Amino acid sequence: MIDILALCAFNAAYAHVIDDDALEQWPAFFTENCRYRITNVENEREGLPAGIVYADSRAMLEDRIAALREANIYERHRYRHLLGLPLVLSADDTTAMACTPFMVARVMATGETLLFATGEYRDRFIRSNGKLLLAERVVVCDSTVTDTLLALPL
Amino acid sequence: MIDILALCAFNAAYAHVIDDDALEQWPAFFTENCRYRITNVENEREGLPAGIVYADSRAMLEDRIAALREANIYERHRYRHLLGLPLVLSADDTTAMACTPFMVARVMATGETLLFATGEYRDRFIRSNGKLLLAERVVVCDSTVTDTLLALPL
Amino acid sequence: MIDILALCAFNAAYAHVIDDDALEQWPAFFTENCRYRITNVENEREGLPAGIVYADSRAMLEDRIAALREANIYERHRYRHLLGLPLVLSADDTTAMACTPFMVARVMATGETLLFATGEYRDRFIRSNGKLLLAERVVVCDSTVTDTLLALPL
Repeated sequence: MIDILALCAFNAAYAHVIDDDALEQWPAFFTENCRYRITNVENEREGLPAGIVYADSRAMLEDRIAALREANIYERHRYRHLLGLPLVLSADDTTAMACTPFMVARVMATGETLLFATGEYRDRFIRSNGKLLLAERVVVCDSTVTDTLLALPL
Repeated sequence: MIDILALCAFNAAYAHVIDDDALEQWPAFFTENCRYRITNVENEREGLPAGIVYADSRAMLEDRIAALREANIYERHRYRHLLGLPLVLSADDTTAMACTPFMVARVMATGETLLFATGEYRDRFIRSNGKLLLAERVVVCDSTVTDTLLALPL
Repeated sequence: MIDILALCAFNAAYAHVIDDDALEQWPAFFTENCRYRITNVENEREGLPAGIVYADSRAMLEDRIAALREANIYERHRYRHLLGLPLVLSADDTTAMACTPFMVARVMATGETLLFATGEYRDRFIRSNGKLLLAERVVVCDSTVTDTLLALPL
């Protein structure tokens, strides 16, 4: 059975590649036909599907990272994810559903550190060939205000 | 024996019902004759018992939630709890004592996100009929400033 | 083998002695010939070794705590550490390498709470006589701005 420790190890590695600026490794945490969305709690409650960011394949996630690398980011910044323990909603040998709360701080080039986003991941995991992957991650932000700097993955 | 993973799963579920606005489920995490207090580190060190919030039964916690629902909350807000790993002070098959650090962000209806409270839970758990419950949770806030908005449970 | 739960329990106890103002117990988490450094991500990437704080023995850590206790701290403050799950890079029966993200809030005597530092621990653990100890902890802060109040251990 997929257990809480396996999900914790997965999430620790996921956050690490983003915060350590190894963004090219980020899409590999997802299945090929994954869904990845960033939305907020109000939109999600009203069933508005679009969200702030939307991808329905790993290839789209790879494109997103390539675009980020090519873009001029006017204000350079880093993220620091702190993830809570997953609340496991269901789990068997090959699939798991879980919610995991997060806080993300943004550290600007000036050194200024802000609590940038809070919310929860709503996840569907699958295990394929012994490897855990995200079939779906919906990033539900608590705040309804979309920050125009939303650039790095959450 | 009550182990750290059981406490982690308990705490993840506890935080989730508050942050997901399922407040009516919150009292069920406590025993019928529980104690629940919110206080701060200075008061706690000086042995001042009252604290900011005090309840000595699950029924009082239920009343508190009912009052919250009926009250006009002028400024609507959400919480996001992020809990650390429990430090297990003692544990056997039916009881455990643990300290768990927390950070709580408050997200206002305007979208503004603030680091609202930090501190630690000082907990006494019991296991009854296979179910883990809080016999006592003392929420010791690091800051001595009582926020008048302190309304949702910590 | 040193596992993730053992590292979690270690880190919970480590953070607790700092945040609970039991600083005299802090050096005992390290080996006698330990290395402890606080630096930032830019310096670390460029291989600049000095950092903001440097110690290469447990005795130096003890001296540091003694100095802190004797010093006039103009602005009294507390820390609250929230640590993420360790990313275990390698582990066997007696050693482990791991990265652990952190957020630290600083709570001033006025009650003001700020997100003070974020970053990651880069750790080398050893197990000696059944006891886990830090042979090396490099505290890599995300922000390059050195706060002159950096006084309590991270």
